[in-house]
Amino acid sequence: MSYDYDAFAGEEVLIIGGIGFIGANLAHRLVGLGARVTLIDSMNPAYGGNMRNIDGIADRVTVNISDVRDRHALPWLVGGKAFIFNLAGQTSHMDSMSDPFTDLEINAAAQLSLLETCRAHAPAAKIVFASTRQIYGRPQYLPVDEKHPIKPVDVNGINKTAGEFYHILYGEVHGLRTTVLRLTNTYGPRMRVKDARQTFLGIWFRRALEGEAFEVWGGEQKRDYTYVDDVVDALLRAALDPDCDGRTFNVGGGEILSLRETAEIVAAAADAAYAVREYPAERKKIDIGDYYSDASAFAAATGWTPTVDFAEGVRRTLDYYRHHLADYL
Amino acid sequence: MSYDYDAFAGEEVLIIGGIGFIGANLAHRLVGLGARVTLIDSMNPAYGGNMRNIDGIADRVTVNISDVRDRHALPWLVGGKAFIFNLAGQTSHMDSMSDPFTDLEINAAAQLSLLETCRAHAPAAKIVFASTRQIYGRPQYLPVDEKHPIKPVDVNGINKTAGEFYHILYGEVHGLRTTVLRLTNTYGPRMRVKDARQTFLGIWFRRALEGEAFEVWGGEQKRDYTYVDDVVDALLRAALDPDCDGRTFNVGGGEILSLRETAEIVAAAADAAYAVREYPAERKKIDIGDYYSDASAFAAATGWTPTVDFAEGVRRTLDYYRHHLADYL
Repeated sequence: MSYDYDAFAGEEVLIIGGIGFIGANLAHRLVGLGARVTLIDSMNPAYGGNMRNIDGIADRVTVNISDVRDRHALPWLVGGKAFIFNLAGQTSHMDSMSDPFTDLEINAAAQLSLLETCRAHAPAAKIVFASTRQIYGRPQYLPVDEKHPIKPVDVNGINKTAGEFYHILYGEVHGLRTTVLRLTNTYGPRMRVKDARQTFLGIWFRRALEGEAFEVWGGEQKRDYTYVDDVVDALLRAALDPDCDGRTFNVGGGEILSLRETAEIVAAAADAAYAVREYPAERKKIDIGDYYSDASAFAAATGWTPTVDFAEGVRRTLDYYRHHLADYL
Repeated sequence: MSYDYDAFAGEEVLIIGGIGFIGANLAHRLVGLGARVTLIDSMNPAYGGNMRNIDGIADRVTVNISDVRDRHALPWLVGGKAFIFNLAGQTSHMDSMSDPFTDLEINAAAQLSLLETCRAHAPAAKIVFASTRQIYGRPQYLPVDEKHPIKPVDVNGINKTAGEFYHILYGEVHGLRTTVLRLTNTYGPRMRVKDARQTFLGIWFRRALEGEAFEVWGGEQKRDYTYVDDVVDALLRAALDPDCDGRTFNVGGGEILSLRETAEIVAAAADAAYAVREYPAERKKIDIGDYYSDASAFAAATGWTPTVDFAEGVRRTLDYYRHHLADYL
């Protein structure tokens, strides 16, 4: 497959969660492609929004501070858009357990109101929704493909399940053009590194660059990671390809690394140390054990494969934060 | 398996949706067993609540008019209960498409607040949740067992999925004792017959007793049906059996009948006529085709099997409405 990314030139594009990690990286790419980009973000300090993320493109995008839960503002914002990248989400598994209602409002209820709004005001828009491997729960087999049972082990996984099911349903019943991508650990420049709310890698990078040993919980769990530029490329392919309409794909499938192997790579790249500690009891209840994705369906549909290996991605990420860490604390 | 139903004598039991169809039948049974029964119901005219449903037991139950969405009232109502039957729900598939937010509030958000309330105020209560076959969507094989993929074809199915997943999650993570029963078409005395909001059988019974031909949409779709006394028995077994804690079961698996065969039985019992018409286009999008349940897991766990065959159940239901139809219009 080859895609004509120039198709985005001059197109009206909305990125929900556009000042956050993945959203801002996508915005940089789309601005480079000549798209007319509007970014919605709540700038809620618990999430990924950070104005430094749009340094260099701030004067070439429309910034609109609003929350995806604000259903009153959505009609105007959605109207006239050709592409909608729906990336806003509550991503913390622990927060979803301590405050399940907020997770429900953002990851389920707001998705429903967005889709209702699109029905009325942007029925022809292509919508790409970022979902998560978390919906599968503890893998019953590996690698996990899209046929794996859906058995979330936390409130976040349940609400994301509802959110992505609404997207497919509104395609089938109301004719919206939607694609769902189930992401695994995404990392790279512009990620949240203040804490572990986006992925544990964030806090690892921070600690490593601050010269402190970072903490590895457990160590044996296997994971796969996707560098953010690869995720951005996946989002663009899903948006451009009408054959992706109505479909749900895993995006992932790079190297499979144990947490300890992951830590070795980060520690070596940052010249830092790490300490292995026991997996905390209160997190164990919602731990998913080993996880890595089978992304072959998306590869077959779009030709997408990860192109940045983990060591290289870590190097690029650390390079970014060596210059920008203070902006992300 | 044999269960000591006398174990309910003197116990504090809460039935949410207790003045509705299944809830009221359960209340009659539990009052007979000597339980101390509290009924919560919103008496929302779109749902199943009908004061005639508790004729004969009204002075032996505590009636509390409140909506499951009222999270402020729940702590007092839930406190001190040994058994909680969680039967309140928005059940109309069509309504869930025209008003998805109400369905979300009742079938997902309110379930989360109920479970949070139970954590705080009734952590030892046994909770039995009534879910629906609708979460499976269009069957990929028949009969449908609990391993069938979850692919709802309407908003109702998505929100019920979230609701039941919360119940299992709160068992695993917070130690609540929860069982989920996925019901198929339940019918019997005290059902809603005003319209098709509970099942199409309701409006069939009404039309048949009013001497009008009832409408059969399509005719070839296969279904299974459960008489309400059998559902009540399933609820009681799930409540009493600690081995059911944390588990999800299909309840169903009686005779398998096409809609036309179903109509023949109803028409014969009521001495009525029916007319087959084409399946309406706007419903086709959320139609699930053939469905019938494999309830063998629940049979293996509890010994439950349906005991009332469809012709007999229809006869009893029609007998009830011959005397009470006016109270249900």
